[in-house]
Amino acid sequence: MKRMDMFGLLKKDMDFIERELYRSISGDDLLNETSLHLLKAGGKRLRPVFVLMGGKFGEYDLEKLMRVAVPLELIHMASLVHDDVIDDADTRRGQLTVKSKWDNKIAMYTGDFIYAKALEIVTQLPNPEIHQILSKAMVEMSIGEMEQIRDFFNTGQSVRRYMLRIRRKTALLIAISCQLGAVAVDANPNFSRQLYRYGYNVGMAFQIQDDLLDLCGTEKQIGKPPGSDIRQGNITLPVIFALQEKEIREPLLHELTRIHELNGQCDVSTAISLIKASSGIRRAEHLATRYINKALDALSELPDYKTKRNLKDIAHFVTRRSY
Amino acid sequence: MKRMDMFGLLKKDMDFIERELYRSISGDDLLNETSLHLLKAGGKRLRPVFVLMGGKFGEYDLEKLMRVAVPLELIHMASLVHDDVIDDADTRRGQLTVKSKWDNKIAMYTGDFIYAKALEIVTQLPNPEIHQILSKAMVEMSIGEMEQIRDFFNTGQSVRRYMLRIRRKTALLIAISCQLGAVAVDANPNFSRQLYRYGYNVGMAFQIQDDLLDLCGTEKQIGKPPGSDIRQGNITLPVIFALQEKEIREPLLHELTRIHELNGQCDVSTAISLIKASSGIRRAEHLATRYINKALDALSELPDYKTKRNLKDIAHFVTRRSY
Repeated sequence: MKRMDMFGLLKKDMDFIERELYRSISGDDLLNETSLHLLKAGGKRLRPVFVLMGGKFGEYDLEKLMRVAVPLELIHMASLVHDDVIDDADTRRGQLTVKSKWDNKIAMYTGDFIYAKALEIVTQLPNPEIHQILSKAMVEMSIGEMEQIRDFFNTGQSVRRYMLRIRRKTALLIAISCQLGAVAVDANPNFSRQLYRYGYNVGMAFQIQDDLLDLCGTEKQIGKPPGSDIRQGNITLPVIFALQEKEIREPLLHELTRIHELNGQCDVSTAISLIKASSGIRRAEHLATRYINKALDALSELPDYKTKRNLKDIAHFVTRRSY
Repeated sequence: MKRMDMFGLLKKDMDFIERELYRSISGDDLLNETSLHLLKAGGKRLRPVFVLMGGKFGEYDLEKLMRVAVPLELIHMASLVHDDVIDDADTRRGQLTVKSKWDNKIAMYTGDFIYAKALEIVTQLPNPEIHQILSKAMVEMSIGEMEQIRDFFNTGQSVRRYMLRIRRKTALLIAISCQLGAVAVDANPNFSRQLYRYGYNVGMAFQIQDDLLDLCGTEKQIGKPPGSDIRQGNITLPVIFALQEKEIREPLLHELTRIHELNGQCDVSTAISLIKASSGIRRAEHLATRYINKALDALSELPDYKTKRNLKDIAHFVTRRSY
């Protein structure tokens, strides 16, 4: 998957972060191999980009920022490997997953190893606030992951419940990426607060868009077969909205029950068509746009017009992206 | 399993730690339930005991020590839940494991949650040295866990390889338990160094004894069926020694191959009898005693005769225990 550097942003510094990511994962041979496989599959490196940009609001120091940027990307990666175990996913970002190329047990320990490596790097920074913010976010993330398991095929869940889940699953880590970049370089506390707000709202929009792409994207665009969420029972926002519509509700529930009974080992195109026939897609897009507007609003209290411009561009990209 | 307070050691303070352990694991409902299940299964609470005793070599402060003792026990618990996934274990400490009562995926996320909670508590301490020591140990532990998977049914492994593995798997966490108790209360750095040495050697002996108990203990004593290690292909020290003996080697290799082919779903009493007929048990006991002597040696540079006496008693207990 393509790294997010379409604005030519901080290219040189992001190359440094990339090298440090590769350097960070040396362990035993098998762990090297599985972690390298993950790193090579790529990713947008959104969290490191946000860390570096957060760092522009204080005394920018790449060495310090690396010790936040690399751990945050590693924590994100580790959560993906563990997710793949739960989701029983064979591909991600167009590559075989660790659990599919090796097995679930190796994927579990690869995740544990990458989490620990992340901590080893971030603890090189003396600032206890950073460690506190990060560990709190990790607790929330793990609660969110468990909620996701529990909510599989829960067709009765509310929009609120979905929002709480993606807050924990995605938005918090993006929020603290923006925030910790600023905290690491001792930026004005009000700046780091606004950056948190920006990141949180971008993160919410990002996950809604991700869930939309799983329904509307192509396999080439999203690096895995579309409809994966439905297959594994992950009830996303467009589905919740679709279930609120009289004519759609019954046939969609019927399809979801069938998919559940077959453990997702079946065609899901009828379900997708039903969702697309509802206003679910449009309403989810609308909500994502509202989050983006809140994110833009958070930027208003920040100085540094160049980085702000870039953060605005990223916010707009989030809801327009197709990967 | 019985808590390790047979010396009436620090009883009141350990009761406080126990309450804090229970308080620490509040999350969502399911995570509460799985974590509570783990806590209730008990354990010797060896790591917290060591933390408190380490704290006796500086300005003893229970509040500070709790923020090391609880995380270390949680990290140990989290590693056990993940281990149970790998080992496919149905019982531990006489109780159903999380992976058996719920499933592997829930066990994986329960472990992730408990790891994160541990970090949340320890990061309340401002001392970066503590975080650095802890995260390094977590990296080593996760490497050790992966090595264990890789070495399953590896009958060609050396004693050295076994020692490296149990160092990472067990001894390091016990070593830093002793050390961090002292570091948390700003003890003389030489004291924390000696406590690390003590803990490391006790930890090595502890794991060797654990591996011996799996061969020689009863189900009632060890809380799981004996021979579990052999069943899952965990080649322990007495086995490595037994394989070095001419008359034992061939029949034992034959048995181990059979057990491997049957994925451990078979009787292992012949293998156990062969190991017991060799000098493997005695030689492993001998090595454990050597580690204990090294542990006692480390104590010689420490003051505070009362706590030293207790640490000596624990060291002796380790190789004599039957649970």
